[in-house]
Amino acid sequence: MSLVGKKVGEFSAHAYRQGEFVDVSDKDLLGHWSIIMFYPADFSFVCPTELEDLQDNYSQLQSLGVEVYSVSADTHFVHKAWHDDSEAVGKVEYTMIGDPSQKIIRLFDVLDEEQGLAQRGTFIIDPEGVVQAMEINADGIGRNASEYLNRIKAGQYVAAHPGEVCPAKWKEDEATLTPGLDLVGKI
Amino acid sequence: MSLVGKKVGEFSAHAYRQGEFVDVSDKDLLGHWSIIMFYPADFSFVCPTELEDLQDNYSQLQSLGVEVYSVSADTHFVHKAWHDDSEAVGKVEYTMIGDPSQKIIRLFDVLDEEQGLAQRGTFIIDPEGVVQAMEINADGIGRNASEYLNRIKAGQYVAAHPGEVCPAKWKEDEATLTPGLDLVGKI
Amino acid sequence: MSLVGKKVGEFSAHAYRQGEFVDVSDKDLLGHWSIIMFYPADFSFVCPTELEDLQDNYSQLQSLGVEVYSVSADTHFVHKAWHDDSEAVGKVEYTMIGDPSQKIIRLFDVLDEEQGLAQRGTFIIDPEGVVQAMEINADGIGRNASEYLNRIKAGQYVAAHPGEVCPAKWKEDEATLTPGLDLVGKI
Amino acid sequence: MSLVGKKVGEFSAHAYRQGEFVDVSDKDLLGHWSIIMFYPADFSFVCPTELEDLQDNYSQLQSLGVEVYSVSADTHFVHKAWHDDSEAVGKVEYTMIGDPSQKIIRLFDVLDEEQGLAQRGTFIIDPEGVVQAMEINADGIGRNASEYLNRIKAGQYVAAHPGEVCPAKWKEDEATLTPGLDLVGKI
Amino acid sequence: MSLVGKKVGEFSAHAYRQGEFVDVSDKDLLGHWSIIMFYPADFSFVCPTELEDLQDNYSQLQSLGVEVYSVSADTHFVHKAWHDDSEAVGKVEYTMIGDPSQKIIRLFDVLDEEQGLAQRGTFIIDPEGVVQAMEINADGIGRNASEYLNRIKAGQYVAAHPGEVCPAKWKEDEATLTPGLDLVGKI
Amino acid sequence: MSLVGKKVGEFSAHAYRQGEFVDVSDKDLLGHWSIIMFYPADFSFVCPTELEDLQDNYSQLQSLGVEVYSVSADTHFVHKAWHDDSEAVGKVEYTMIGDPSQKIIRLFDVLDEEQGLAQRGTFIIDPEGVVQAMEINADGIGRNASEYLNRIKAGQYVAAHPGEVCPAKWKEDEATLTPGLDLVGKI
Amino acid sequence: MSLVGKKVGEFSAHAYRQGEFVDVSDKDLLGHWSIIMFYPADFSFVCPTELEDLQDNYSQLQSLGVEVYSVSADTHFVHKAWHDDSEAVGKVEYTMIGDPSQKIIRLFDVLDEEQGLAQRGTFIIDPEGVVQAMEINADGIGRNASEYLNRIKAGQYVAAHPGEVCPAKWKEDEATLTPGLDLVGKI
Amino acid sequence: MSLVGKKVGEFSAHAYRQGEFVDVSDKDLLGHWSIIMFYPADFSFVCPTELEDLQDNYSQLQSLGVEVYSVSADTHFVHKAWHDDSEAVGKVEYTMIGDPSQKIIRLFDVLDEEQGLAQRGTFIIDPEGVVQAMEINADGIGRNASEYLNRIKAGQYVAAHPGEVCPAKWKEDEATLTPGLDLVGKI
Amino acid sequence: MSLVGKKVGEFSAHAYRQGEFVDVSDKDLLGHWSIIMFYPADFSFVCPTELEDLQDNYSQLQSLGVEVYSVSADTHFVHKAWHDDSEAVGKVEYTMIGDPSQKIIRLFDVLDEEQGLAQRGTFIIDPEGVVQAMEINADGIGRNASEYLNRIKAGQYVAAHPGEVCPAKWKEDEATLTPGLDLVGKI
Amino acid sequence: MSLVGKKVGEFSAHAYRQGEFVDVSDKDLLGHWSIIMFYPADFSFVCPTELEDLQDNYSQLQSLGVEVYSVSADTHFVHKAWHDDSEAVGKVEYTMIGDPSQKIIRLFDVLDEEQGLAQRGTFIIDPEGVVQAMEINADGIGRNASEYLNRIKAGQYVAAHPGEVCPAKWKEDEATLTPGLDLVGKI
Repeated sequence: MSLVGKKVGEFSAHAYRQGEFVDVSDKDLLGHWSIIMFYPADFSFVCPTELEDLQDNYSQLQSLGVEVYSVSADTHFVHKAWHDDSEAVGKVEYTMIGDPSQKIIRLFDVLDEEQGLAQRGTFIIDPEGVVQAMEINADGIGRNASEYLNRIKAGQYVAAHPGEVCPAKWKEDEATLTPGLDLVGKI
Repeated sequence: MSLVGKKVGEFSAHAYRQGEFVDVSDKDLLGHWSIIMFYPADFSFVCPTELEDLQDNYSQLQSLGVEVYSVSADTHFVHKAWHDDSEAVGKVEYTMIGDPSQKIIRLFDVLDEEQGLAQRGTFIIDPEGVVQAMEINADGIGRNASEYLNRIKAGQYVAAHPGEVCPAKWKEDEATLTPGLDLVGKI
Repeated sequence: MSLVGKKVGEFSAHAYRQGEFVDVSDKDLLGHWSIIMFYPADFSFVCPTELEDLQDNYSQLQSLGVEVYSVSADTHFVHKAWHDDSEAVGKVEYTMIGDPSQKIIRLFDVLDEEQGLAQRGTFIIDPEGVVQAMEINADGIGRNASEYLNRIKAGQYVAAHPGEVCPAKWKEDEATLTPGLDLVGKI
Repeated sequence: MSLVGKKVGEFSAHAYRQGEFVDVSDKDLLGHWSIIMFYPADFSFVCPTELEDLQDNYSQLQSLGVEVYSVSADTHFVHKAWHDDSEAVGKVEYTMIGDPSQKIIRLFDVLDEEQGLAQRGTFIIDPEGVVQAMEINADGIGRNASEYLNRIKAGQYVAAHPGEVCPAKWKEDEATLTPGLDLVGKI
Repeated sequence: MSLVGKKVGEFSAHAYRQGEFVDVSDKDLLGHWSIIMFYPADFSFVCPTELEDLQDNYSQLQSLGVEVYSVSADTHFVHKAWHDDSEAVGKVEYTMIGDPSQKIIRLFDVLDEEQGLAQRGTFIIDPEGVVQAMEINADGIGRNASEYLNRIKAGQYVAAHPGEVCPAKWKEDEATLTPGLDLVGKI
Repeated sequence: MSLVGKKVGEFSAHAYRQGEFVDVSDKDLLGHWSIIMFYPADFSFVCPTELEDLQDNYSQLQSLGVEVYSVSADTHFVHKAWHDDSEAVGKVEYTMIGDPSQKIIRLFDVLDEEQGLAQRGTFIIDPEGVVQAMEINADGIGRNASEYLNRIKAGQYVAAHPGEVCPAKWKEDEATLTPGLDLVGKI
Repeated sequence: MSLVGKKVGEFSAHAYRQGEFVDVSDKDLLGHWSIIMFYPADFSFVCPTELEDLQDNYSQLQSLGVEVYSVSADTHFVHKAWHDDSEAVGKVEYTMIGDPSQKIIRLFDVLDEEQGLAQRGTFIIDPEGVVQAMEINADGIGRNASEYLNRIKAGQYVAAHPGEVCPAKWKEDEATLTPGLDLVGKI
Repeated sequence: MSLVGKKVGEFSAHAYRQGEFVDVSDKDLLGHWSIIMFYPADFSFVCPTELEDLQDNYSQLQSLGVEVYSVSADTHFVHKAWHDDSEAVGKVEYTMIGDPSQKIIRLFDVLDEEQGLAQRGTFIIDPEGVVQAMEINADGIGRNASEYLNRIKAGQYVAAHPGEVCPAKWKEDEATLTPGLDLVGKI
Repeated sequence: MSLVGKKVGEFSAHAYRQGEFVDVSDKDLLGHWSIIMFYPADFSFVCPTELEDLQDNYSQLQSLGVEVYSVSADTHFVHKAWHDDSEAVGKVEYTMIGDPSQKIIRLFDVLDEEQGLAQRGTFIIDPEGVVQAMEINADGIGRNASEYLNRIKAGQYVAAHPGEVCPAKWKEDEATLTPGLDLVGKI
Repeated sequence: MSLVGKKVGEFSAHAYRQGEFVDVSDKDLLGHWSIIMFYPADFSFVCPTELEDLQDNYSQLQSLGVEVYSVSADTHFVHKAWHDDSEAVGKVEYTMIGDPSQKIIRLFDVLDEEQGLAQRGTFIIDPEGVVQAMEINADGIGRNASEYLNRIKAGQYVAAHPGEVCPAKWKEDEATLTPGLDLVGKI
């Protein structure tokens, strides 16, 4: 069974956030929806565009009560340096977690052991700390942060309306389905 | 390390496809891109909308040389029955694999052991049989098949243009990035 | 030692019964005689005739206080769909248990691991939950539900008349045997 | 998985048959259909009626090419003595196997370890030595040998007509079913 | 170390004795001397003469307070049948234990595993349940029950006269030996 | 299963025989019948009378082609000394094996581990080195060597007349039994 | 036993050197003396002064034929970025190895598992790849690269003059000691 | 992870110090800084010059509150003899520990198992018994005790000024660094 | 580590002493010095001269408070017989322990497993039951009991004068050595 | 079983002999008798008198073709120093083996693990490398080398005269014993 449906394990880490060094743990994930985005390495190539894309969606995510965390095996020192250096990464306002001991990366099973770097995995986590959706791409294929918005909205809708489910391609304000015996074989 | 970057293991199965019962194995994945979509159960609620959505994108996927497979723990008999019954599923033209022994579902680590059903996982596989992208959603959150189109285009572009990578939100015909020493810390 | 003479282990499952989804567990077997009939798969060939034959004997079994359960590795959703589709199965009034996690099928040791399907086993269970008789046929050989009637009558007679046993081919109202020292070697 | 569908393991034993002591092994099961009937003990109560009932069907079974073997943990000496003593058992013409080492009884998993006696199991075996049907009853419930006739006829019909299956309650000369895609959900 | 000098382990069994079925356990061995005689099988050849010979000495053994038990792997049903049939065995008045589960036979290490039958062992047991003498013969060599009389008399004499021992060929009323330092090397 | 019916294992030892030290091994047991008599200790009390009694039967045993060996955990030096000292033991003409390493005593399972001495066991062995009869007595109960004569005669008779068996109390020149189907239950 | 006297294990890694990304392996250590200096993290505090100090001694080390490598768990991307950013590190001309998979750090047993960072270890390696000297300091205590010069000179002198050893505080051109029996206890 | 940062394990030993035999244990390391210097063998060649060099720095080390211990696998008897014999070693005032059981040498992982001698390791230990620095040289390369002075001064400075760190080549009275966010990438 | 310096383990045994059979255990060794002399076998060749030699020194050993025990794997019966027979052994007044179970011989690790006999070991034991000296000779080489006198005197002297040691060849009334720092290297 | 009668295992070591450092191995023990004397430590108290005593007997031992080796856990350097320092040890002409790795000491099972020193064991070894005699004394009790002379003479006599044995207290030119049947119980 994949991580979807399981609670996130325990972790603690140093992070860089808006000019400060802060501590983050699994406890900080509780009480609100979260996105954790893993990427291979600071100062590498595809990565900054993905971090920038996520930042571009950050205010909209925040308006949905979603907190955002990026994670790589670099230290928080390197996160700050990258933030200082890179135009794209310099815009980032969310929390950049340093995981040099690779504990969080292992926790989400996205460690490329050969390289010692994280795979490009994104995890959407509900306020109970349970993974609701995950996506992992190979190197070379960038992510699209706007796709996470709909998944979170669907998750939030279903959490708020027990007994209803969102069909494929569901978008906010569209009809949902209420499972029932009479639907069997009828869709 | 996740399945991304690993070759799909060996399997063989009975399937239903366009009015016929056919056999499918991991060998059939070689030589073209593939999408394998797992879903919990025939005749359940969200599932038909996801299968329909995937069918709606099937011709476009085929034009990219992509073959599509759906998998659940139901038998191929039940797949045919559902195909006969359901308006949404009745449209499906791609291959519907029956996996009652749950071997394929285990191979992709999406078996919910408690329920004996597959989780909602989608896997994009390249012509060498290597997983290039994966996505798993909790029950209640539908998938959006159109998102797979861009990932496959990006994967195909990168495979065709060694040394270039697609940035976040990349869409066909947009500029890609060529990794180089001078890009470090400059994006 | 076979399952005969042993108590049925613990299980719980979803089932379809007369237009409703219900939950069933080993606790429901207590207090009355039961027949549990395993079959390979919904929407397959021999199976519907066996379910129909069992239904044809259902009222007579009920008059003996016997409850009837069919089990396959299909879900309860599929059971409903089959019930809706098939003329033969549509008559079924007894409980159709869905066992996609294959726990009950394993409990009765009738899982064909290669196919992931149940073998054609029938189990007669007394009000204490102890197996009193079992029968398993290879694929291709149908069962005859009327034969279970006499076995249950014999079992009920012996339970009601401690110290007597039913001879071969015994039928209701025929004489039974009372074991005694003087019978040794005299029959 | 039960014994149905598996080949009978190796064994050899002494037996009593029509006034002679003979040797029997699993090799003797090949080339014709066989019934092996286990019962608890010579000189006990229900047992003679079951042996007699099996004898009453013996000529009809022989006409179908079926050979019959009874097995208990008694010696072949005791079988002869019982045959000499008992009116019912004295009629028996089939082979009475003595299994004091309980190897055959264990091979078919019908040993009641506490008592050291066989359970009331019947096994129908095809000419390849593969179990096609099995039935086990608790003490107190007698068997009905005539029921085996139909099962063997069905097995023989299916073996002779590959691709057809016998429905429930099937009797010789009745129609069989030929599995096909169009039958799915249509019976 | 052999069983001589060790206490008999726990057992319980059904037996035939003088027209009745009775239960026997290791507890019944306490408080008096006992002979337990194992033999291969009821209705076999040497066995009845040995049982008869033991019966011929039974009254004399009883006058010494000795109880006698015969044991084979046959059931008590078969014992009764043999008793009814055989002229020699029909005289037997002592207890004939049925050991189809072979537990007692194993307890005394006289099970021929290949045949599932008891070896021809005789055990003399004192009132504390401790084996005082044992004798086992191969098939083909009959036993002589009268020899047990002297052994029991010697055992009883030594038990009654602590500090004395019976020399070879000792017979009742003959002199015994009282061990002492002065006897060393002087006999 | 007891040692009866099993071949004697390998051993070699020093022994005293008629004024000489000789070597003895299991090879020496082949080609003729043998008696091996174990006793606890040289210079102890019951033992010399048993050795003397065996000597008194030695010429008769030799005339049957039987060789005789006594064994204790004492050395062959001590055997010679005892032979020199004791009037009873001084008569002994058969082979007195010294087994200080207790290997032969263990081979026949008659080692009293607590005392380091042999139990009073006697074993009759056929010309193939297979044990045909055994007898073990507790301390305090002497043996009677003349009883071995009949057992050896019976064993020799049966070996010479395959298919016949000696009944209980059989003595030379008496009738034997030829097992046959017609004897079952008729003695 | 410490690593001193042992050959360096196998490794391969990406590195940054004078404006280029290069590959380095244990093979590159052969044929000349090497210094490998581990430090915790790029962009941290003590580290740049140590790298600068090592650079200040680099030309003198090169004139002795010594190659220099720094190692941290950061990637080679981060090394380049730090080299670009930091005035002190910007001077570095030797090879900066990236070890995000921590394999080299583990190979030299200087991984602080809790933090996922390297300890401040320095290793001097001879042309056969054997460690000749090692030094590890706690955080907070800086190293002094000039001390390595004398150790390497001593090592090179001893390698060139077999049979002589350098005494404590030895400096180039000072007398060495030639071990001999007459020196024992005389210094 | 190396020993740096770990507490010294438990040990106790006999030692020679200034004309007396004394006992030393790990408890004696607490409350002051310590140097433990291992060397291969008394009466060997490089060793005396290293002990002499350490003695030359002893008064300065004592003024810093540092206690000094030398350790080899020789006994304290041999230490005294060497102290008596050797001009260089005769000057030694610090404690010379005898470790013939090699327990302390193993504790610091500097046992050359093949030779049974200690490697040339030096360990600087803080008042809590935690190793702060270590250095090991191959045979043939002498140590320089004066280098330890600066390391201890740096360690003492940092212990006394929490939050400051000593840069490379730091010498007493030079500036230290206070880590802070603004220093990242700026040195 | 050898047995010297270790406490003798627990044992108990029968023994012959001056015309009587007595029991001996490890408890009897406490409170006085003891000699335990093992030898292979009673009635063998070298052995009696060694027992005689030990007897010749027995009165002198007794005057030192030493108790003497001889041990072989023979029984106490055989010891008495040998004592009666042999002129040399007949003089023995000390305790002759019989160890047929070989437990004491194993305890002192002098069992020749192949022969089952004791090796020629002598053990000197102090009043606390601790072995102070041991000597073992191959067969063929006799012992000299007078040598034990000096060892016991030296042991007793050292026990009475803590802090002194007896030099080589020490004899009663000669000077001993008082260990002290000033003796190191001066003898 | 003790080391007596076993071949010495493999070893190699550095040693000091008559002003030179030499290598010694188990191969050097072959072809002549040897004495190996273990002692705790150079420069300790009893030890020098024992080495001196052994030297006093060295010429006589050499005339018997015996080679002598002393062994302690000290190095050969320390042996030389002790030889230089000590009047008693300075006389030693035999080989002084250094065993700092304690391999030889373990081989002879005389390592006091707690102290890391050898126990005072002496081993007499024949030209085949087999231990013929051993002696171990507790600390405080000196050895007497002259006692070894007689043991070696006895060993040599017996080796030269197969079939004879030396009685206790045997001295050169005294009568030996020739074992024979007639000697049993007669000495």
